[in-house]
Amino acid sequence: MPITEIKALVFDVFGTVVDWRSGIAREAAPFLARIGRGDVDPHAFADAWRALYMPAMEEVRSGRRAFTRLDVLHRENLEAVLRGLGIGPVDEASLTALNTAWHRLDPWPDAVAGLHRLKARYMIAPLSNGHIALIANMAKCAGLPWDAILEAEIARAYKPAPEAYLRSVEALAMIPAQVCMVAAHEGDLAAAAACGLRTAYVMRPLEYGAARDVAATRAWDVAVGDFGELAGRFGC
Amino acid sequence: MPITEIKALVFDVFGTVVDWRSGIAREAAPFLARIGRGDVDPHAFADAWRALYMPAMEEVRSGRRAFTRLDVLHRENLEAVLRGLGIGPVDEASLTALNTAWHRLDPWPDAVAGLHRLKARYMIAPLSNGHIALIANMAKCAGLPWDAILEAEIARAYKPAPEAYLRSVEALAMIPAQVCMVAAHEGDLAAAAACGLRTAYVMRPLEYGAARDVAATRAWDVAVGDFGELAGRFGC
Repeated sequence: MPITEIKALVFDVFGTVVDWRSGIAREAAPFLARIGRGDVDPHAFADAWRALYMPAMEEVRSGRRAFTRLDVLHRENLEAVLRGLGIGPVDEASLTALNTAWHRLDPWPDAVAGLHRLKARYMIAPLSNGHIALIANMAKCAGLPWDAILEAEIARAYKPAPEAYLRSVEALAMIPAQVCMVAAHEGDLAAAAACGLRTAYVMRPLEYGAARDVAATRAWDVAVGDFGELAGRFGC
Repeated sequence: MPITEIKALVFDVFGTVVDWRSGIAREAAPFLARIGRGDVDPHAFADAWRALYMPAMEEVRSGRRAFTRLDVLHRENLEAVLRGLGIGPVDEASLTALNTAWHRLDPWPDAVAGLHRLKARYMIAPLSNGHIALIANMAKCAGLPWDAILEAEIARAYKPAPEAYLRSVEALAMIPAQVCMVAAHEGDLAAAAACGLRTAYVMRPLEYGAARDVAATRAWDVAVGDFGELAGRFGC
């Protein structure tokens, strides 16, 4: 890979930089206990909530729904999960607090150190389906040293729509070949590659709990085990 | 001022956080020497370039021109200044390099330390008429520790249009009373106050070179001499 051309690395966030499942389960556990549903496994709760993420965004991607921030989609999905569990009305303050758990997710253990190394030589930015407030709050909590925040709200499009990648590259005043998409999800990388971006695959076998096989199924420009290895591959 | 309500400080950048005049003059001097016009004072050159900033943005604000990034406006203005000086064709690479001098401006001496103190307790972000690439490049060069980057490109509006303030507040998922606009220009603060934001005036008597009287002419929520004092007033 002619790494010398690359000027910026842009990152998928949920699953690639932060461990959404543990973070959501950590905040769901006391919530469920408080409403008398300590029988519900908080990790299963996190999985159920996350499972509604893609279908909700698909409504926007398909054009059936106007662009809607992820906080709103997360809230609708939370209410759907609660209904599915037969959980009746919950006070507004508790729902709001749990919904913003997505703003307080912990980074994978290698993420912050790796980002600091990469930042010394490259522009680094999230390219997430989250919105500015969510991603900025998360960065502040987790200590993610982004140079800029690129996300769905700027692009007015959700990945993997091409506009999400192309408008973000344009916001950096770069061309696609100067930008490398970093993600733990091959669908995200395939969509980025189709737009001309370079690609770095990061294996996150624990994203859904028990370790799974996440070996790359395509020849990405780079494939690594964590952000430390990624920084090394980029000469940082 | 009920400072306890405030959750975010947003900053004017050119003149408030960075010293545009010295930075532009520093890069203009070797440019002018190289094209055989060492007779032109580089600070006067910077002033002439900056003087075209407001009229260029007014074209966009008035609706006579579609939203256009500041890099493009700066470039047009640069060419106008060169024409005004009777300077003929200059090679494209030199023009491009000089035009991006706006990405490499130095912070006022108190700015970085003050921002770090404020960041410990508040969300801090630029609210600039610059665009994402310019403001992110500047932050990287100057070490400005922004939590998020808010600017004209996100708002699709130039200050002092109300949309520039209101869309930025909305991007933070806050209400105007939770956000304090920090600026060295009272017109910027007046427009922010009219939108319901809180206001902090920072005196920058050297923005245009020789010290001038910049005492506040209105009772802003806070008026300070530098970012160190600002951090102190905000309990940081």
